[in-house]
Amino acid sequence: MALPTHAEDFPGWYQEVVKQAGLAEPSLARGTMVIKPYGYGIWERIQRAVDDRIKATGHENLYFPLLIPNKLLEKEAQHVEGFAPEVAVVTHAGGEKLEEPLVVRPTSEAIIWATYAKWIQSYRDLPLLYNQWCNVVRWELRPRVFLRTTEFLWQEGHTAHETADEAIAEALLILREVYVDAVEKVLGIPVIPGRKSASERFPGAEETLTMEAMMRDRKALQAGTSHYLGQNFAKAYGVQFQGRDGEQQYAYATSWGVSTRLVGAVIMTHGDDKGLRLPPEVAPYEIVIVPIYKSDDERLRVMEALSRVKVALAGRRVKVDDREQLRPGYKYNEWELKGVPLRIELGPRDAAANHVVVARRDTGKKETVGVDALAERARRLLEEIQANLFRDAKDFREVNTFTPTDYEDFKATIAAGGGFLQGAWCGDPECEAQIKADTKATIRFLPLQPEQPGEPCIHCGKPGTERATWALAY
Amino acid sequence: MALPTHAEDFPGWYQEVVKQAGLAEPSLARGTMVIKPYGYGIWERIQRAVDDRIKATGHENLYFPLLIPNKLLEKEAQHVEGFAPEVAVVTHAGGEKLEEPLVVRPTSEAIIWATYAKWIQSYRDLPLLYNQWCNVVRWELRPRVFLRTTEFLWQEGHTAHETADEAIAEALLILREVYVDAVEKVLGIPVIPGRKSASERFPGAEETLTMEAMMRDRKALQAGTSHYLGQNFAKAYGVQFQGRDGEQQYAYATSWGVSTRLVGAVIMTHGDDKGLRLPPEVAPYEIVIVPIYKSDDERLRVMEALSRVKVALAGRRVKVDDREQLRPGYKYNEWELKGVPLRIELGPRDAAANHVVVARRDTGKKETVGVDALAERARRLLEEIQANLFRDAKDFREVNTFTPTDYEDFKATIAAGGGFLQGAWCGDPECEAQIKADTKATIRFLPLQPEQPGEPCIHCGKPGTERATWALAY
Repeated sequence: MALPTHAEDFPGWYQEVVKQAGLAEPSLARGTMVIKPYGYGIWERIQRAVDDRIKATGHENLYFPLLIPNKLLEKEAQHVEGFAPEVAVVTHAGGEKLEEPLVVRPTSEAIIWATYAKWIQSYRDLPLLYNQWCNVVRWELRPRVFLRTTEFLWQEGHTAHETADEAIAEALLILREVYVDAVEKVLGIPVIPGRKSASERFPGAEETLTMEAMMRDRKALQAGTSHYLGQNFAKAYGVQFQGRDGEQQYAYATSWGVSTRLVGAVIMTHGDDKGLRLPPEVAPYEIVIVPIYKSDDERLRVMEALSRVKVALAGRRVKVDDREQLRPGYKYNEWELKGVPLRIELGPRDAAANHVVVARRDTGKKETVGVDALAERARRLLEEIQANLFRDAKDFREVNTFTPTDYEDFKATIAAGGGFLQGAWCGDPECEAQIKADTKATIRFLPLQPEQPGEPCIHCGKPGTERATWALAY
Repeated sequence: MALPTHAEDFPGWYQEVVKQAGLAEPSLARGTMVIKPYGYGIWERIQRAVDDRIKATGHENLYFPLLIPNKLLEKEAQHVEGFAPEVAVVTHAGGEKLEEPLVVRPTSEAIIWATYAKWIQSYRDLPLLYNQWCNVVRWELRPRVFLRTTEFLWQEGHTAHETADEAIAEALLILREVYVDAVEKVLGIPVIPGRKSASERFPGAEETLTMEAMMRDRKALQAGTSHYLGQNFAKAYGVQFQGRDGEQQYAYATSWGVSTRLVGAVIMTHGDDKGLRLPPEVAPYEIVIVPIYKSDDERLRVMEALSRVKVALAGRRVKVDDREQLRPGYKYNEWELKGVPLRIELGPRDAAANHVVVARRDTGKKETVGVDALAERARRLLEEIQANLFRDAKDFREVNTFTPTDYEDFKATIAAGGGFLQGAWCGDPECEAQIKADTKATIRFLPLQPEQPGEPCIHCGKPGTERATWALAY
């Protein structure tokens, strides 16, 4: 079935690509999804990229339980206010009603900080630099596969520090060295690191850092967040330690996460009207080979050449599509839909000439490559595709980043298709709320280093205190 | 705090090792645990070993939701009978009472086969060879860290096949090429593959294959299972396909899993009175280096030598214990408790002579090794330790495997400390139950290929129909 184009129906395009490429499908419990092998293969490569960087920056993995006593969640006031409406509650287990209901974790600050209270006695126990890979459940009213699901997979890091400065540095380190690095280099998604405004902060955070990406419909997607939590959780859960000065003090916290939402980001950053375009680094298959033949004799010669091609590509993630009942043209369309970076066509004439035809998914360009030169050429082409997809997405973002001259221009720009809108903001949450009410645009990020703009607030005209970037968002 | 010895209190030894080595601790919700970084590091290495083999045998990973509509679980009669008493039930979510309660998956046959009904239409859609890594919840009355916890981490494979033979071959392939291979080669645990008796089968299985290991208290531990499910789940969930003959038929199923219980198996297979002994392949650190110095001058020279040692060991998983406030002897005890395979001691005289002292955790033997020869010697020693731990565990099992002459001897052997007891069995479940009631011993496995024993049943004296192996078990 043909995909809708981006221009005619982007949400419909997204839904159809997810379905037709075999990435995921809605499951039976409300808002849940089955992540199918092709989608999970992308997630495994994202996990590897993020996990390698988490470890390289000195963190260790561990695992905390799924089920959290309800009363534990209630200890941090903002946290419970933010999450209580979204939790799933276990009231019965082992055939009996539980005395104390258990919530399925929506995030793990509560159980982790209740446990850190036992682990942290002295400044010598600090820092704790821990992360876990797990599932979380948040009851979503408007679920959308990968982007907003009742259950999703993620990693959540939770660190404890002696000083505020150290915790703030940690939140920044994760944002830059782990998240931005992995997402730009491996997922090929250009992102802008920044701070959230107070109204968009994580419940219980002093500061929420974010990286924001632009999707092909010009909407923003929050691709990951890193929170400086101050002493809020240490105070709520009684995590005190003896400091270097001999005094008891509360530990400083960070938490940070990226999730299966990133699969959605890959789809919506790189896809085109033909389907997915996967950056080689996250593609389950870097290369698909389609052997082409009619007679048994041709088949024999093509298959013999195929074995040489496979040897040349040893070490690469290669799929051979040797399904008998399908025509080459059908296969080309299917693998284009699935976004495999390189397609190799191998027919009887190619076999005789000891070469293959290589087609790039990103540009559609084809070239003939000798089997002897194939390993090196494939390596080079995959690097080029990785770089080209990143550049292409960055160009798209730059073309769709605007500096409205006044609020009328701001509203007109949103109405004309949106994008990133940069301007001055007075810092007043009411002004922010009014802009959202008028246009649905929200502040996606403020610069990491606050800058005093010379201009007045784009909305109210009072003196600007921050440079903000607005967008419609997922 | 000193550990109890194996001889005086094996359960106490286990509990203290888990605690003192920092592997895990009980958490707040009943029967749950926090897997701490050192324990999780072991699990990550187990995961990698199993996942590599799952993929190498042609399977792909995917992910099904945690929450399953309660009515779905009820469709397979034996399955619901087995699991309904153990499930945790979500009755409220998003601030409201749910119309249909959701169960937290105790295992995923129900949701997976309900979904396979959509994925399988024709024999061309088969086989489906899928696996997922996830958490499951089973309400345990007598929880024990790693061995039996309310929540545990595992992988569960679920495959669908055209024929019974193919499914049976799959169940065997997983047992041998994935589980036995990983557990013996990587975890260093000798296991015996076999079949379960009907009473010990997975609820809904036609045949349950198992691999059984012997712990250091002579009890058996079921280290992993692979089930041939026949058409039971296909019939319960309506999974029919059009066969090669054009007729509609039900698919054949397998499922198979190993879990965080394997961390417990590593502890109880290899540990000794000093603590853990980790096979290098699963050890978070293969080598710990303890620098030794008193004066600042000594420190300088030792640290300079240390940097050469680290270069020599590049690519190995090395921990440098440079904590200032602790004595070397204290550190040695701690790393022995934590089971690090090799310890390197590096003092001022070693630094001057450009050598180090290397101590093996498995045998306690020490030797002096020149820094230039260290890389090769460490590689060799780690291989030897891996092999030695496996051999040692296998010897222990063989010494503790008995062939009782009659039922009195059987009971006396159990009373004298147990082990694996081999003998003939009539095949009658009542006879099996009576032996269990008398001695607590259960049939751990029957041979993969049924053998007709010449002797009478060890308990009732009727003609033997199976060779069975009994043991007390975890």
